[in-house]
Amino acid sequence: MNHIDNLSINAIRVLSADAIQKAKSGHPGLPLGAAPIAYELWAHHMNHNPANPDWRNRDRFILSGGHGSMLLYSLLYLYRYGDMTLDDLKEFRRLDSKTPGHPEYRHTVGVEATTGPLGAGMGMAVGMAIAEKHLASVFNKEGYPVIDHYTYALGGDGCMMEGISSEAFSLAGTLGLSKLIILYDSNNISIEGSTDIAFTEDVQKRMESFGFQTLEVADGNDIDAVGKAIEEAKADTEHPSFITIHTEIGYGCPNKQGKASAHGEPLGEENVKEMKETLGWTSQEPFYVPDEVYAHYKELRDALAEKEEEWNKMYAEYCEKFPEMKELMEQYFECDCEAILKDNEEFWKRGEKPEATRAISGRILNTIKDSVPNLMGGSADLAPSNKTYLNDKGDFSADCPSGRNMHFGVRELAMGAIGNGMMLHGGLHSYVATFFVFSDYIKPMARLSSIMKVPMTYVYSHDSIGVGEDGPTHEPIEQLAMFRAMPNFHVFRPCDAVETEAAWYSALTSKETPTAIVLTRQNLAPMAGSSKDALKGGYILEDCEGTPDMILIATGSEVELAAGAKSVLEEKGKKVRLVSMPCVDIFEEQTDEYKERVLPKDVTKRVSVEALSTFGWDRYVGPEGKAIGMTTFGASGPYKTLFEFFGFTVDAIVEAAESL
Amino acid sequence: MNHIDNLSINAIRVLSADAIQKAKSGHPGLPLGAAPIAYELWAHHMNHNPANPDWRNRDRFILSGGHGSMLLYSLLYLYRYGDMTLDDLKEFRRLDSKTPGHPEYRHTVGVEATTGPLGAGMGMAVGMAIAEKHLASVFNKEGYPVIDHYTYALGGDGCMMEGISSEAFSLAGTLGLSKLIILYDSNNISIEGSTDIAFTEDVQKRMESFGFQTLEVADGNDIDAVGKAIEEAKADTEHPSFITIHTEIGYGCPNKQGKASAHGEPLGEENVKEMKETLGWTSQEPFYVPDEVYAHYKELRDALAEKEEEWNKMYAEYCEKFPEMKELMEQYFECDCEAILKDNEEFWKRGEKPEATRAISGRILNTIKDSVPNLMGGSADLAPSNKTYLNDKGDFSADCPSGRNMHFGVRELAMGAIGNGMMLHGGLHSYVATFFVFSDYIKPMARLSSIMKVPMTYVYSHDSIGVGEDGPTHEPIEQLAMFRAMPNFHVFRPCDAVETEAAWYSALTSKETPTAIVLTRQNLAPMAGSSKDALKGGYILEDCEGTPDMILIATGSEVELAAGAKSVLEEKGKKVRLVSMPCVDIFEEQTDEYKERVLPKDVTKRVSVEALSTFGWDRYVGPEGKAIGMTTFGASGPYKTLFEFFGFTVDAIVEAAESL
Repeated sequence: MNHIDNLSINAIRVLSADAIQKAKSGHPGLPLGAAPIAYELWAHHMNHNPANPDWRNRDRFILSGGHGSMLLYSLLYLYRYGDMTLDDLKEFRRLDSKTPGHPEYRHTVGVEATTGPLGAGMGMAVGMAIAEKHLASVFNKEGYPVIDHYTYALGGDGCMMEGISSEAFSLAGTLGLSKLIILYDSNNISIEGSTDIAFTEDVQKRMESFGFQTLEVADGNDIDAVGKAIEEAKADTEHPSFITIHTEIGYGCPNKQGKASAHGEPLGEENVKEMKETLGWTSQEPFYVPDEVYAHYKELRDALAEKEEEWNKMYAEYCEKFPEMKELMEQYFECDCEAILKDNEEFWKRGEKPEATRAISGRILNTIKDSVPNLMGGSADLAPSNKTYLNDKGDFSADCPSGRNMHFGVRELAMGAIGNGMMLHGGLHSYVATFFVFSDYIKPMARLSSIMKVPMTYVYSHDSIGVGEDGPTHEPIEQLAMFRAMPNFHVFRPCDAVETEAAWYSALTSKETPTAIVLTRQNLAPMAGSSKDALKGGYILEDCEGTPDMILIATGSEVELAAGAKSVLEEKGKKVRLVSMPCVDIFEEQTDEYKERVLPKDVTKRVSVEALSTFGWDRYVGPEGKAIGMTTFGASGPYKTLFEFFGFTVDAIVEAAESL
Repeated sequence: MNHIDNLSINAIRVLSADAIQKAKSGHPGLPLGAAPIAYELWAHHMNHNPANPDWRNRDRFILSGGHGSMLLYSLLYLYRYGDMTLDDLKEFRRLDSKTPGHPEYRHTVGVEATTGPLGAGMGMAVGMAIAEKHLASVFNKEGYPVIDHYTYALGGDGCMMEGISSEAFSLAGTLGLSKLIILYDSNNISIEGSTDIAFTEDVQKRMESFGFQTLEVADGNDIDAVGKAIEEAKADTEHPSFITIHTEIGYGCPNKQGKASAHGEPLGEENVKEMKETLGWTSQEPFYVPDEVYAHYKELRDALAEKEEEWNKMYAEYCEKFPEMKELMEQYFECDCEAILKDNEEFWKRGEKPEATRAISGRILNTIKDSVPNLMGGSADLAPSNKTYLNDKGDFSADCPSGRNMHFGVRELAMGAIGNGMMLHGGLHSYVATFFVFSDYIKPMARLSSIMKVPMTYVYSHDSIGVGEDGPTHEPIEQLAMFRAMPNFHVFRPCDAVETEAAWYSALTSKETPTAIVLTRQNLAPMAGSSKDALKGGYILEDCEGTPDMILIATGSEVELAAGAKSVLEEKGKKVRLVSMPCVDIFEEQTDEYKERVLPKDVTKRVSVEALSTFGWDRYVGPEGKAIGMTTFGASGPYKTLFEFFGFTVDAIVEAAESL
């Protein structure tokens, strides 16, 4: 290896070790072992421009092993991404620093995705590669490959053990995502020791079985070999590529390298010292980087800026030649759904007959598929049940990248990650779908959407014991509470067409908050009082004259029942207000004044009705009210029998209200 | 195929199709396609005794594709498991029938595991095979293989697409679980159509990469070939086996076979009729089965009963020869942890110095590992952090099956399923561990524990923003609410040694409810007032004289802060009660009287403190109280900084209390 490459790689190692040592916390193993891989990739293969981290056609890089964050931060510093300074590295893992424990999207310039939960980055990388392939098919013209870039992800043994990577890679192989290149930092060490204790599989063979081209680099310090493998990966235009690169965890630190103890704790001052000696580093001063290294990275930066410059020229020509495409590009990358949907009469339509909200949702999707051309998504093999298919818009596949319907297969977790990756790429609004009960499988990725502030949409049909015959394994109970408890997440459970439209409107216009739309399997009657006020999360659906004696609060399929109970109670002389609460999270965001108007403190007789867990409803019914809901799992039987059996009937609501 | 085998197989098809038709709901595709596989296995290879479904040494069979439940119910009926009758089949998918939509453990005799969420059965099968291997190593003596059986699981494309199966099978290969035999019903059809759209991987190759012997049967109707493959699978004593059996979904029904529409809806009356004609069934009468078929199944039953008889004889000799082993067997299979732990002074010990509850938990495990010899478990590659290692008890591996420490690898979801499987097998109490935030990954399997009433133990360390530097991806917020909202699940968040002991006591003595024990990374001071009353879920930890002016409620690490606030408030002349609430779920199970004693309605000034989501606390603080908790994600920084920043300080609690 030549002098400057060697020095530039060791700069990454030294900065990482120093920052972790200063923080007294962090994971040196990966940065030390994988520094040459990342260096070779960023310096000699990846198209990116630190001066413009938003360049649409940049190659994407995800550090799937997010615990190795100092690898990324060292690179971002040396490449001058954002305004990352040496002081930022010194603030590693301090509150409000640019260098938190794991890389955080939207928090640190140059971080393409929040990683840390292992394997998630692999799924998001697959999503980015899908986005690239789709957008390329939409936008590229002969001689003008305006979307034409690679997606790289770097991860270790943990990423490969997690099931999400099998899910995502199996799909990537099926879809022939040839511009996806996975770099596997294989060091045979996990936290509990050698990977032999739990992970003796033949990873290359597994990846071949998924349809990847597999490549192997015997020594991760051999950057020529790494570079050659990357070029071979690029050369395969039919299969995604997987490069196993054998490394030594904690390389360069004699007392730690190759050991589990290198993974997740500072090396120790003495060991950092020894590491610098071993690497031939010329100074023991913490965070010291020789000038020639800085100069070298500046050269690299300048060359990279030229890459974007070339693209900018091509893009300018493209825009001139295809002005309609320029416009379309803006429609994709800066989609203003508010403008498109706000007063769209096709979109805002009342229901005319009883209908399942999943069917309504399916109609909505097909109504807006042309006006929102960058809407792309699908289901984990339940599209006919979830009603998420965009008719006549094609199926995304290796041969048909312009298709907008994704077939994710029975892989909920990877689907969530892929959906995130599609949005992180830019240019698309993705949605993913399954039965609500299986949102459990997606949960870790929904959490990442929320943390990253990626406003993707989760479509969940079969929303309660209304599932019926499939029984308790298929009937959500605690899932609404689970999502309501999660920060920065909106979960809608609409009661009819208007509220379902409001849910989609909210989802598609959201800038920083992901949305779940939770839909019934069974038919629901349209409610005369439903309105765009659903966008406030909760509102008065049917009121009484004067101050109410009591308030009924319901969501989704139970609104109809509550309306029935209201009528009965009114016949008995009670003044009853009916509040529909399709989105508790958004209701909570309203002013105290609005909340008081809907739920006046003085009206303490309150009943909530929701055919899922009662957990969390005390907030609205108060100590004198009653929450009608589930406290056990569901059962298998026709849904009407179940509603009766579990006490979701007009009579039961009336009885509860009268008992107050 | 001979006449009676053919007829006996078609009986399964006919009963399944009729029951689904009658229910107007269900999944005929799998039962029709896979009937010959299940028939061949149950009739000619599996050791089981319908007359004694609890026979300890029976071969286990899990229908991982649980939607094909009618396959299993037809078999259970024909073999006369429990008292399954034709009427039960006629009640398929009706409320309270023995034949719910998906097979339910503890609900229907002969069902070894609740299945439906795809892939879960594969994970549970791996757990059962681990249990068998471990127990065999503990109990078998030369000439007396008292634990010596196979575990079979049957599943389809969906099971193979789910990441959990990759996780579980990779571990199964590493562990050399040669008595695990997977039957893959490969029909190339998924709900959205041909598996080509999402699943073109080479499944055999993937399974080889995991270390399985792979076998293939070209025609699932060729029971001789199926039988031969099963024998080959048994013959391999080093690797688990995977048999791909090519079938046609909905076989026998001309209008449906090979089509996605065969999967999940009744065939239709006309199609059922045609199916019976095609199969040469002699009667169109629903649920008709010829006498010779009944006679044949009786013969099979009788032969099977003899198998157990042989084992019983051997076991009787074994018990005579090794009386200490008989005793040990009872200790494993009927472990009475209440008797062992209730007054065990070694177990119940007060803490003496500040200590992390994860460290306390680790000590507890090592204190009881000899008195509870069937305790076996481990972590998803975080044992050093979770403190779950049983010192000197060996690591379970291919070569050391007597080891009691599991190394699950970074595979949380499969770990949950495997833990369930280990308990379902009988003979073991399993525990699994990871960081609390990654309980998200396990959630679907924790839900199965709850539904199945399997009282396994989940150990979750790093329980709040107290995680510190690792930042928001590693800091649980909504996870406590998620588990509290789930029926039949206990989640403990102890504040010191005594409460951690109570949590373990509750977990190990629970008969039908799984338990999560949520533990701190950081040190906590022992609380003078902590006591076994923690077993009531919530109790008065420190009281005041007379009626309190206000009540502080806290859990885990915040109890210490609340106690500090209590002192400050008392100095200011307030009478303050401090309630520790380590397990909300169990507190809810107490009598109204007890709850009123702890939290008297009249004391409305209440503050709860918990460094996780406030969601759900309204129930205890009421409309006049205040819940101190998290409403956003956490951040990366030293934990003391985070506690300060997010308002978990004595001062903040005092301030909140005074503001009421």
